[in-house]
Amino acid sequence: MAANGHMTLPEGGKARRVYLLLRDEMSNGTYPAGATLPGEQKLAEIFAVSRVTIRRALDALDADGLIERRAGSGTQVRPQADTGPVAADFTSLMPQLVAMGQSTTARLLSFSYGAAPSHVAQAMGLDDGARVQTAVRVRSLDDRPFSHLTTYVPEIIAANYTEADLATTPLFRLLERSGVQVEGAQQSVTATLASPDVAEALGVSVGSALLSLRRVVRDADGRGVEYLSALYRADLFRLEMTLNRVGGADDRHWEPVIDSEQVQEAAE
Amino acid sequence: MAANGHMTLPEGGKARRVYLLLRDEMSNGTYPAGATLPGEQKLAEIFAVSRVTIRRALDALDADGLIERRAGSGTQVRPQADTGPVAADFTSLMPQLVAMGQSTTARLLSFSYGAAPSHVAQAMGLDDGARVQTAVRVRSLDDRPFSHLTTYVPEIIAANYTEADLATTPLFRLLERSGVQVEGAQQSVTATLASPDVAEALGVSVGSALLSLRRVVRDADGRGVEYLSALYRADLFRLEMTLNRVGGADDRHWEPVIDSEQVQEAAE
Repeated sequence: MAANGHMTLPEGGKARRVYLLLRDEMSNGTYPAGATLPGEQKLAEIFAVSRVTIRRALDALDADGLIERRAGSGTQVRPQADTGPVAADFTSLMPQLVAMGQSTTARLLSFSYGAAPSHVAQAMGLDDGARVQTAVRVRSLDDRPFSHLTTYVPEIIAANYTEADLATTPLFRLLERSGVQVEGAQQSVTATLASPDVAEALGVSVGSALLSLRRVVRDADGRGVEYLSALYRADLFRLEMTLNRVGGADDRHWEPVIDSEQVQEAAE
Repeated sequence: MAANGHMTLPEGGKARRVYLLLRDEMSNGTYPAGATLPGEQKLAEIFAVSRVTIRRALDALDADGLIERRAGSGTQVRPQADTGPVAADFTSLMPQLVAMGQSTTARLLSFSYGAAPSHVAQAMGLDDGARVQTAVRVRSLDDRPFSHLTTYVPEIIAANYTEADLATTPLFRLLERSGVQVEGAQQSVTATLASPDVAEALGVSVGSALLSLRRVVRDADGRGVEYLSALYRADLFRLEMTLNRVGGADDRHWEPVIDSEQVQEAAE
């Protein structure tokens, strides 16, 4: 999806806000390809802004190639040639990229050692002020950035790999290569808004919707060996899961379906 | 979390935007309880706005009881008495509410029969224009709305329960009571922004971050029996999952941990 139309709209202004909301509704199925958007007057009522603001937002969407405005028949959502969001299986932790014949690249934005932030130390079960390596990376698919990853690893483990390793090899593989006996992981998913620094790294507007994933990976002794805070562009990424309903009448329940093709790798 | 401070800030204005971003960063751990926010001048640079705008945003956060401004020592994030987000297990589809000793109530916002939207018909494997029942509900925890649920059920199945049933009983239970043999479900999670109607129903600002979950439930014949589009307040809801790393060296992989206490119910 080309997405430069917003560049013409002042950051934080009303037209930019309407543009973001409409783009979001086009990617989330509220207004799918082929749908006709409400008229300018109606949109102005929905968003409680002037028609001039609506027109500016529509101009930007038009510049992105997302809509087609036809005299008489209204504004239509254009189908996107886009291959669609990157899908990742929530169970295997692995993005279904291989199957899509695509590959990702990581760019290291920062790399440092220092005291763990208190919420990180707490989640990993580390002492307050314990030293960790902090790395910030942006992962791209076909040169399009889709995830912003901040990882924390106890200094003693991180000493086993280099900054250069991090730019080329998934952290999870580096941990196992370092002899860490990974026992389990706990992950938690919610949504957040793009802050100015993350927005810049991911090439989106400040205030765009991001999927937020936290993961704490533990070793056989229950020690935290990795804390991941991952932010994914909502227009390019989704987590997927297939469940089967199994069991008898008394203990009927859901069971996740695990794709055995995806057992070796860990998503970041 | 009291959250009326934003009422003093014009919808779509810069101060409201900064307020939303800072609130988000306080709930996502960037600025946890006890953290000191950057000074006004620094915040003005980060958000590329004036100090007056920063001050307005901070006033609103102060009115919400989220920060404490102390002369000399800066602005501190206040700990919240809040019990924290509603956590739901992604595997069992069930929010961990029982364990929390809390209960939810649902309010039916709309209820109608008509042709399925094309993306819904496609996902459910229904013919174009197939008739479905559409229900929109808001679910609250202790009178605080946290989810906005839109469900689509083929008319022939929906005929087995009433509008009143929907307001009191989880849809999934109504389906099984109607004799539907649920076989499996596919779910997909991403993030989105609160549109004006959803924002009003959930009591949040337009443009707030929401977790977006789509689920298609199928019967033994592979027919779609329910399509759920759920939007959750990111400040009140998260999806959780525990995984174990199992298997030998050759087929080491992740396996989700299923909590056997949570096998009977389906989250909505």
